[in-house]
Amino acid sequence: MVAPVPEPTPLSLPPALMSAADRERARDARGFMPEAEGLLLHRAALAAAARGPMLEIGGYCGKSAIYLGCAARERDGVLFSVDHHRGSEENQPGQLYCDPEVVDPRSGRLDSLPHFRRTLEAAALEEWVIAIVGTSTLVSAHWRTALSLLFIDGGHTEEAAEADYAGFGRHLDSGGLLAIHDVFPDPADGGQAPYHVYLRALDDGLHEVAATGSMRVLRR
Amino acid sequence: MVAPVPEPTPLSLPPALMSAADRERARDARGFMPEAEGLLLHRAALAAAARGPMLEIGGYCGKSAIYLGCAARERDGVLFSVDHHRGSEENQPGQLYCDPEVVDPRSGRLDSLPHFRRTLEAAALEEWVIAIVGTSTLVSAHWRTALSLLFIDGGHTEEAAEADYAGFGRHLDSGGLLAIHDVFPDPADGGQAPYHVYLRALDDGLHEVAATGSMRVLRR
Repeated sequence: MVAPVPEPTPLSLPPALMSAADRERARDARGFMPEAEGLLLHRAALAAAARGPMLEIGGYCGKSAIYLGCAARERDGVLFSVDHHRGSEENQPGQLYCDPEVVDPRSGRLDSLPHFRRTLEAAALEEWVIAIVGTSTLVSAHWRTALSLLFIDGGHTEEAAEADYAGFGRHLDSGGLLAIHDVFPDPADGGQAPYHVYLRALDDGLHEVAATGSMRVLRR
Repeated sequence: MVAPVPEPTPLSLPPALMSAADRERARDARGFMPEAEGLLLHRAALAAAARGPMLEIGGYCGKSAIYLGCAARERDGVLFSVDHHRGSEENQPGQLYCDPEVVDPRSGRLDSLPHFRRTLEAAALEEWVIAIVGTSTLVSAHWRTALSLLFIDGGHTEEAAEADYAGFGRHLDSGGLLAIHDVFPDPADGGQAPYHVYLRALDDGLHEVAATGSMRVLRR
């Protein structure tokens, strides 16, 4: 059964403010996000960043942090990027989305942190993007800061995605934006956990303001 | 002029709870902290960690994070370790405390983050220590979480040390512990900025509870 998807309410997000070089860096960064989705994320961040800090769950190698961080730089804002940088389930050695170049040869464990760091350095975004290296549940247990934007793109199990929404969604300020990646209403297109978070957010009274591909943006 | 130093009030900190292997790892980690000072820090953390999160400023290569993190692990606590990992003034290439092995050969810039990460991994402390990679002023501007212990060991300029105390000291809970490293009442022994922070904390009503070498522990 596929639940009906409400029609997106249009919101006039500002146009993207990324140089051709930054767009190219974002395209070239390792990760799993088509440019159109990244640019929507960037535009949502432009709308939010001046009001307070933004937070993403799932930094991986820094692709989405470029889209969000470029908006933080434009608006004198800041992005906190939460990731333990040991990879999600599907990134582990032997799994479908494992990139062998993201494995630490010393330990055989996945380590996306050096890639994340170099991506941010190359994009000159270190002043606007703060990496928080730890599990999202541990970080959210101690988080007390209101957020202007929350981007959920961490673990894609039901448990992980729900915990990310529960742990950080309550810190979204009134009018704050919730972006969710990999929302697939049809199970044939992908895992259902992000879609279930999306439905729960709608149920909590957030409303959808924009969508491109599997990226959904809701407002509280 | 050297201001008079109050006599430390004894506090019965618990005895250290570190294995011989962890103590050896801490001794071997790059950094600038004699073991006796590290063990005092560890004992202060044992006294504090169950009450709430701890935070250190100046993670560098993870030496102090072992002392603090082992206490967090014992007490089911957590340590946030704030550092931009680009080195303090005195760590920069060409300066007195620059370790060439902590310079990123790709960029020529100091990068202590890979060392910090490996130190924590080897000590099996990744679950209890969360690195926050950014400048302490930017992180403190958005920090809202009460702290059971604050350890100041970041930039040693007057401006940096004062900003660290001002930015995070206000989040110390009642009874919380403030540890300051490199406190040298005599200018002949070292820079004065940490000592000035120490005096300011006393002036703010904190009282000293323990001291070893240049490490001072105060209680709010």
